[in-house]
Amino acid sequence: MFAPRCPSREVFAELVDKWSMLILMTLSSCGPQRFSELQRAVGGVSRKMLTQSLRNLERSGLVRRTVFPETPPRVVYDLLPLGRELAELVEPLGRWTERRAEQMMAAREEFDAAHAEG
Amino acid sequence: MFAPRCPSREVFAELVDKWSMLILMTLSSCGPQRFSELQRAVGGVSRKMLTQSLRNLERSGLVRRTVFPETPPRVVYDLLPLGRELAELVEPLGRWTERRAEQMMAAREEFDAAHAEG
Repeated sequence: MFAPRCPSREVFAELVDKWSMLILMTLSSCGPQRFSELQRAVGGVSRKMLTQSLRNLERSGLVRRTVFPETPPRVVYDLLPLGRELAELVEPLGRWTERRAEQMMAAREEFDAAHAEG
Repeated sequence: MFAPRCPSREVFAELVDKWSMLILMTLSSCGPQRFSELQRAVGGVSRKMLTQSLRNLERSGLVRRTVFPETPPRVVYDLLPLGRELAELVEPLGRWTERRAEQMMAAREEFDAAHAEG
């Protein structure tokens, strides 16, 4: 993963993306979701970015896209076993960030103040 | 973290970045590193991206930058306790990616073949 041309670097670079991670966490905690539900859950994501991230996750075998032949067709996204594995590793990262966000914001203010003086 | 203007979203978006994560993993497994050592360890990173990622990590209180007043000055980066905490969560993600990379690459080939036919 530390070598630029290794497949694991390529895969890592695509998975390590805020939208993909927020999508995985949403599917993991809320179960199967429609596109519009995901868009509501992952605040601030554009249609385009959500489409692209879901397609990447589907392409790598992490998420399954199922079309139910209704009128209009219902499209549902859910986690495949590989996606579930990854979601379980991403969740602690999310919880940690929420727990430490305030501390990191304070560190930033301090850093910015010190560098403004300098 | 799911709300676009929440500080934890902002922090999450910056940390969840391949370079930051590879830097954290390197500092965690190799100990304090000079800039040039990090650049060698994190294959493919440009001077500019490494500088920027290290500055973000330093600004958020994850990494410490120490200048030793030698000639020429020696600059060393190491993990602060907050960075060590995060590195411990990122490492399982890295190991998982390396373990599953081949499977994900195979899924991609299958997906691409199916969509080329369609």
